[in-house]
Amino acid sequence: MAQRHPDPPAPSTPARTPDDALTVYLRAQSTEFLRALRLHGEAPAESTRALRRAARRLTATLHTYRPLLNPAWSDQLHPELAWLSGTLGAEHTYEGRLTRLLGALARLSDPAYATVSGPRADPTPRTGSGAPAAATVHLGAAKAAALLERQLTLARTRAHSTALQALGSARFHAVADKVAVLASDVPLTTTPDGTDLRSLAAAAEERLTDAVAALPVLPPGHPCTTEPPPQGLADTPWHQVRLLLRLHRYAQEVLDGDGDGSPHPRLLTAVLALNRHRDAAEAAGAAAQAARTPRIAPATAYTLGVLHADQRHEVEACRFAFQQAWRQRPVAPARH
Amino acid sequence: MAQRHPDPPAPSTPARTPDDALTVYLRAQSTEFLRALRLHGEAPAESTRALRRAARRLTATLHTYRPLLNPAWSDQLHPELAWLSGTLGAEHTYEGRLTRLLGALARLSDPAYATVSGPRADPTPRTGSGAPAAATVHLGAAKAAALLERQLTLARTRAHSTALQALGSARFHAVADKVAVLASDVPLTTTPDGTDLRSLAAAAEERLTDAVAALPVLPPGHPCTTEPPPQGLADTPWHQVRLLLRLHRYAQEVLDGDGDGSPHPRLLTAVLALNRHRDAAEAAGAAAQAARTPRIAPATAYTLGVLHADQRHEVEACRFAFQQAWRQRPVAPARH
Repeated sequence: MAQRHPDPPAPSTPARTPDDALTVYLRAQSTEFLRALRLHGEAPAESTRALRRAARRLTATLHTYRPLLNPAWSDQLHPELAWLSGTLGAEHTYEGRLTRLLGALARLSDPAYATVSGPRADPTPRTGSGAPAAATVHLGAAKAAALLERQLTLARTRAHSTALQALGSARFHAVADKVAVLASDVPLTTTPDGTDLRSLAAAAEERLTDAVAALPVLPPGHPCTTEPPPQGLADTPWHQVRLLLRLHRYAQEVLDGDGDGSPHPRLLTAVLALNRHRDAAEAAGAAAQAARTPRIAPATAYTLGVLHADQRHEVEACRFAFQQAWRQRPVAPARH
Repeated sequence: MAQRHPDPPAPSTPARTPDDALTVYLRAQSTEFLRALRLHGEAPAESTRALRRAARRLTATLHTYRPLLNPAWSDQLHPELAWLSGTLGAEHTYEGRLTRLLGALARLSDPAYATVSGPRADPTPRTGSGAPAAATVHLGAAKAAALLERQLTLARTRAHSTALQALGSARFHAVADKVAVLASDVPLTTTPDGTDLRSLAAAAEERLTDAVAALPVLPPGHPCTTEPPPQGLADTPWHQVRLLLRLHRYAQEVLDGDGDGSPHPRLLTAVLALNRHRDAAEAAGAAAQAARTPRIAPATAYTLGVLHADQRHEVEACRFAFQQAWRQRPVAPARH
């Protein structure tokens, strides 16, 4: 692949337009994409990460600044980049999910905690079977770990093959060719109504602000002394805010001429909270899914239930953390 | 029973001693005890509650102010009152535990929440069995509820019989006779070293303060953005603080000449947090215990695991709520 996509030509001195920052950013990210691609033979994991990183930024920029770009070109490239970044990300996602779930299982089955390993000392008389059960339930944790490891390793292996196939496909080479052209030649267009970078970035920020404002208000109280928070709230609006926050971040990078990859410190806590929200929600789903495996032992199912609830509680905690971070975020600096 | 324990004689005018408040309080609680006992034929639930309430206060007072009371008498009556209050409380405890667990199950199996009813929508491909599983796991909630209802109703019924037997026993009548005597005649003693009510109440408060100070410090951070709190901490020190807080409360009631039954507003939040801590810890134990029932379906076990983790999370939340309430409690008013 590296052979097919040579170094882009040195950028010609562009006409200085108000939307110059867009050109600079798209060229820089395309160049990053091509550099990552050349790395793939030596350092495939590093290369894949960098390809995803650039593809995410290109996708977001094509989306937010669409009115400033050739629409036919943009509408063709946008879904292809989104496909690529999704395909390249799946392996990493499954790997992270397994690490998260095994870590939670280890924490939950710590004998000092005993959520998994059994009930507390209780002065009131017991009903039920009694002593040999503790060993059974401890076995549940080991079996649940083995089940998750098997299922998520299988999913990860499949995702790895899919990513490798994708990188060798004609579809990928077509994307890479387009990105190579973009590295030197950004197909700008003009808008009749004077829409510019700044107004489009402001619109992206407004979509984010509106979506955050529409999130369910979490009660400030504490589940111990007030009613528990309404845990029935669907995850989707939060995932949506995460995507809008990402679009806002990358739109800001274009304006700021900055694409070093880490979130703006102003938004760092909010971004991390929503990333962990997504990870915990998907890990909870994986635990529930594993519990549906036919013919598992009750002790395994019990442990997976504990694990699911643990991850769902982290989902709630992350919502709370996000809302706190969002309220406390410093005012944005004046934009240049 | 009511016939055997007539109204206590009107209290004779007591000699005014520095420890008069102790006499007044013990007489008042004994009178309450006898009044509750006479109610038993008409309103057994109300009567049992009032008997427990008075027995708890008498037990605590005999404990805290032991040096001011005839030791042989006190050491004989104290365990009998503790036995009574435990025996009379068990039915109420099981009833509350079942209500708590069924309420949590209803909340957790709300379709909008989906902790019990299944995983989230997830853009990445699924491993595992798929669609018919949701119905299975929903069935799990119904089966888990039925199992808990069966086990805890059985335990409650047994506790009810045990309490009825206790109220008809010679052992109980011996306690009631002693309490009837106490209503008119408090066996005070003098201490050689000038120990008085105030110093004993201060000692009870100091034991509480020391136990609270020895509790593990909960990290102020949030599980989403920091490491999760060390959930491995045993429940016992918290239960111990709950008991010491109760002793402190009743010791204060003696000093304040007040025994209306509600915690001092200064301590209300802390008391409620530790009560809920105890209830949640025992409910979690009951869910784990139910999961050890032989031959339950995996879906039932899974739901019980979710339920257990939910209750353990409430345990953690209550610890946090207690520590906040404790730190924020206003300074005690000057004592009279």
